[in-house]
Amino acid sequence: MSDYFTLSFRPDIYLTLEGDRLTLQSPSECLTLEHPKPGLRSALEQLLHSALTTTQLTALVVETDGIEDGLSFEAELQKLISLGWISHSVLPLATAIPIAENYQLISAVFDWQQQPLTLSRFAFLHQENQQFVLESPISKAKIILLDWRATALIAKLAQSSFTLKNLVETLIDEEIAESFVQLLIATQMIPLEPESKALAQWEFHNLLFHRQTRSERLDDLRKSKVPRFEDHERSPVVKPPMSNQVIALEKPDLVTLAKTDCSLTQAIEARQSIREYDRQPITLNQLGEFLYRCARVKEVYSQENNPLNMGEFTKRPYPCGGGLYELEIYPVINQCQGLNSGLYHYQPLSHTLHLIADLHEVEVLIYDAWKATGQQDIPQVLFIVTARFGRLFWKYYAIGYGLILKHIGVLYQTFYLVATAMKLAPSAIGAGNSEQFSKIANLNEYEEASVGEFSLGSLKQTNDNPS
Amino acid sequence: MSDYFTLSFRPDIYLTLEGDRLTLQSPSECLTLEHPKPGLRSALEQLLHSALTTTQLTALVVETDGIEDGLSFEAELQKLISLGWISHSVLPLATAIPIAENYQLISAVFDWQQQPLTLSRFAFLHQENQQFVLESPISKAKIILLDWRATALIAKLAQSSFTLKNLVETLIDEEIAESFVQLLIATQMIPLEPESKALAQWEFHNLLFHRQTRSERLDDLRKSKVPRFEDHERSPVVKPPMSNQVIALEKPDLVTLAKTDCSLTQAIEARQSIREYDRQPITLNQLGEFLYRCARVKEVYSQENNPLNMGEFTKRPYPCGGGLYELEIYPVINQCQGLNSGLYHYQPLSHTLHLIADLHEVEVLIYDAWKATGQQDIPQVLFIVTARFGRLFWKYYAIGYGLILKHIGVLYQTFYLVATAMKLAPSAIGAGNSEQFSKIANLNEYEEASVGEFSLGSLKQTNDNPS
Repeated sequence: MSDYFTLSFRPDIYLTLEGDRLTLQSPSECLTLEHPKPGLRSALEQLLHSALTTTQLTALVVETDGIEDGLSFEAELQKLISLGWISHSVLPLATAIPIAENYQLISAVFDWQQQPLTLSRFAFLHQENQQFVLESPISKAKIILLDWRATALIAKLAQSSFTLKNLVETLIDEEIAESFVQLLIATQMIPLEPESKALAQWEFHNLLFHRQTRSERLDDLRKSKVPRFEDHERSPVVKPPMSNQVIALEKPDLVTLAKTDCSLTQAIEARQSIREYDRQPITLNQLGEFLYRCARVKEVYSQENNPLNMGEFTKRPYPCGGGLYELEIYPVINQCQGLNSGLYHYQPLSHTLHLIADLHEVEVLIYDAWKATGQQDIPQVLFIVTARFGRLFWKYYAIGYGLILKHIGVLYQTFYLVATAMKLAPSAIGAGNSEQFSKIANLNEYEEASVGEFSLGSLKQTNDNPS
Repeated sequence: MSDYFTLSFRPDIYLTLEGDRLTLQSPSECLTLEHPKPGLRSALEQLLHSALTTTQLTALVVETDGIEDGLSFEAELQKLISLGWISHSVLPLATAIPIAENYQLISAVFDWQQQPLTLSRFAFLHQENQQFVLESPISKAKIILLDWRATALIAKLAQSSFTLKNLVETLIDEEIAESFVQLLIATQMIPLEPESKALAQWEFHNLLFHRQTRSERLDDLRKSKVPRFEDHERSPVVKPPMSNQVIALEKPDLVTLAKTDCSLTQAIEARQSIREYDRQPITLNQLGEFLYRCARVKEVYSQENNPLNMGEFTKRPYPCGGGLYELEIYPVINQCQGLNSGLYHYQPLSHTLHLIADLHEVEVLIYDAWKATGQQDIPQVLFIVTARFGRLFWKYYAIGYGLILKHIGVLYQTFYLVATAMKLAPSAIGAGNSEQFSKIANLNEYEEASVGEFSLGSLKQTNDNPS
C-alpha cells in the first residue's frame, strides 16, 4: 500500500515555521512541534507537495535522524492519516482528499490478472468548483480527477468488468494505472467483495442523502457557520394572497375548546387512518375550524436585539425549526358543504382560502391521491403541502430538505389528532408528484414545490376501519 | 437541432407488425395504426435503430407518401418525443433516454467560438447496470455514455470552461463533438444561462433527493410494483432485547388518563420547545409514562388473508406508513431520578429499558446535542431515534428514506404534546451524527442508523421560554 501513493497535507492544512517551532494548523485544530529534528522537518515540508511515498518519507527521517525516529515518524503519520489530514495521490491522475475523520485506506491483496474490477454503483462523478470529483456515500474520500485519462479509465470500469491487464491498453502507463486502481479500491470506489445484504437494500439517492445530512464533512464547514441575513434573499414570513377570490373561514373559540375538547390521551389512543367517508360531506365550518386549530398564524414577531437582522418569524400551532415556517397548505376541495370545488391556498395570517383553480383543472390531483391510498373512497378534501424552500435553505444549508420532511411529519400528526378530536376521517398519503402540482398551481418548482399530501373527509356513523 | 441527433424508440418501446396493423407498445400505453402508408412504416421501422435524423426521417416519408404526410409525420413525431418515447443519439458517443414525460430538448443558439461551456453542478456520472450514465435532477434525460471519449470530453467540461474550439483537440472528430455538446446543452447538462436565484439555493443532494422521491420516472416503475415478501428478508417486527440489564417501566392507567389528561387543544396551544430544566430532574416514573403514551406496542397482528405473506405488524400510539414501525428509541440518560445514567434501548413490546453502555462512553452524544440546541441547559434525557431500514425499504423503495423522516416528525409532535401534557420540558434537535452513534451502540450503519434526536427534562417552576 505504502508505495502506490504519494502523500501531502489536505489543502486546508497549513504548516508554518517560526524560529525553531513548527506549527500545523487545520480549520479546527493546531499541532505544535518545538525543536523538530532536521529529518522530521524535511519530511513534513515534503508533505506540502505530493512528492514522496510513505516509504520514501520514512527513509528521509531515518537517514537524517536515525532509525528510532523513523519508526515513531511512521506511527505519527498514521495518526495524521486517521485524523483526515493527509491526501493520497497518484500523479498525474488524481488526489484522494479525506472528507471524514477516522480515515483509513482499505488495503487489498488480489490477483491483478484475474480479479474483475467494476465501479461501485454508489460512486459518482460531478463538477464542484471547476474540479471533476469522484465521491461516494460509502467512501471517506473525495477524489479529485486531475487528468481526463483518469475519467476515461473510470468510464471503462463502469461499462464492464475489467482486469487491470485488459484495462490499460495504450491509454496510460501500466504502473500508473495500477496505482490509480489501487487508490479506487482503497477508497471503496471499486468494491472487491459483493455488497452486504444491508447495503444492497439502499438506493443511491437515499444513501447519499443520509450521508450528506447525518455526518460531519471535513471539507464542508458551512453547516456550522452562523447564517447571515445577506447570504440569500429570503421568502417573506407569510406567503402573500394568491388570488382575490377569498373565502373567510370559521374561527373556533379556543377558550371554550380548551375545556370541551377531548383529552390528549383520547385523541392519541383513538387516532387512525380512515379513508371511507359519510355521504354527508365535511362542511366549510369544519374545514375552517380544522385549519385554525392546526395551522393558523398565532403571532408575528421579530427578534429585535438580534444583530443578524433575521427578519420576521411567526408562531403557529405546530412546531418548526428556527420558527421559519416554510410549509404552505393548498386544500383541493372535491366535496365540501358550503364551499365550491376547486384548488385553494390557505392564508394562515388572515385565516382565509384563496381560489386558484377550478375542479376540472385539478381532478388529476384527487385521482392520484386516491390511487396512492388503496383506492377506497375518493377524498372529500385533499391537502397538498408545499415548502417554500427559500424560507429555510438560507439557514439550514445541507440539512434543509431533511428538516422539511420532519416538519411534514409534525404537521401530519397535528392533522391526525385534531381530525380525531373533531370526529373527521384523516389519512396521510405516502407519495405524490411535485411537477404536476407546480404546473397546476403555477409555481417555480425550485422556489416552492409539493412535499406532502393528506386527505380529510366526514366520518361514517359506524366506522371500524383499521389504521 | 433536428440534424445533430439520430432518433430511436426508447429501449422499452416495442414495435410489432401484424398483417397491416402496426402497434407501438410502451410499459403503460399502446398505440395502434391501421394500414400505415409505406413511407410512414419505413420511418417508424427506422426508429428501431438510431440511424436517421428528424430531417432524414421526414424526407423518407415525403419521398414515398407525399409532402402532406411528411408534415403530419413531423407533428406526430413531436408528440412521441413529448411523451418520452424517443431517444436522441450522437453515435458513437452517447444516447439520451427520456426519464420523464413532457420531454423536450432545449434548443439554443450561441457562438461556438466564444461561448464558454461548463458542466452543470447538478450533473453526475455513475454506473448503473454496467452502463456509465450521466444524469441530473434538472434534466428529463439520462445519457448513456457509450464510449470513453464521451467521458473524457465531459471531464474537460468539468475542469474548466471550454469553447468548443479548444475542447476538441485531437480526441475526436469536430462534428461529432459539436453534436455531443449540443446534446448536453439540449438536456440541461451544460447550462448556457447563470443559475436562477431559486435554483442557486439548492444543494446537489437535496435536489437529487427531491427529484427521486417526488416525481415519476419512466425508467423506474419499481415504485408502483406490488411488494413481494421474497424481495428482501425483512427486519423483525420488534427489535429483540439488546441486553440483559433490564429496567421495567411504569405503565400509566390510560382509562384514568383519558379522563384526567389535559385537552388536545390545551396541549397544542401550550406546546413549546424548552431547553431549561428544574434542579430536580425528571423521574423514572415520568420517563416510563412518557414512553408508554408515545411509543409502546399496543398490538401485534398479521393480515391473515393477505396472499403476500407480509409477516407481522404492530399498532403504536403514533402513525406509521404501512404499519411497519421502523423507528427505535434509545434514551441517553444524563440525569433521571431512580435510573442510572447511560445509554439504553427502549423495548416497546415489553415496555422495558435495556442498558447498552455506561455514561462515560456516551457523554459525547449529550455534548453534541447540547451544542446543536443553542447551549442552554444540558439535556437530562436525550432520545436518539434510529431507523431499521430493512423494515421499510423492501416495500417503499425509492421513497423509503423520505418516509422515515416524515415518521420522525410524527414522533416528534407526539413527544411534544405528551411532554406538554405531563408538564415536562421537550425540544426537538435539528442535527446529529449517525456514524458516531452507530459506533457507540454497535450498529451496522446500513442496517440501522440514527435519524433524529429529541431532548427531555423536568420543567422549571416558572418558565417563559419562547419556542
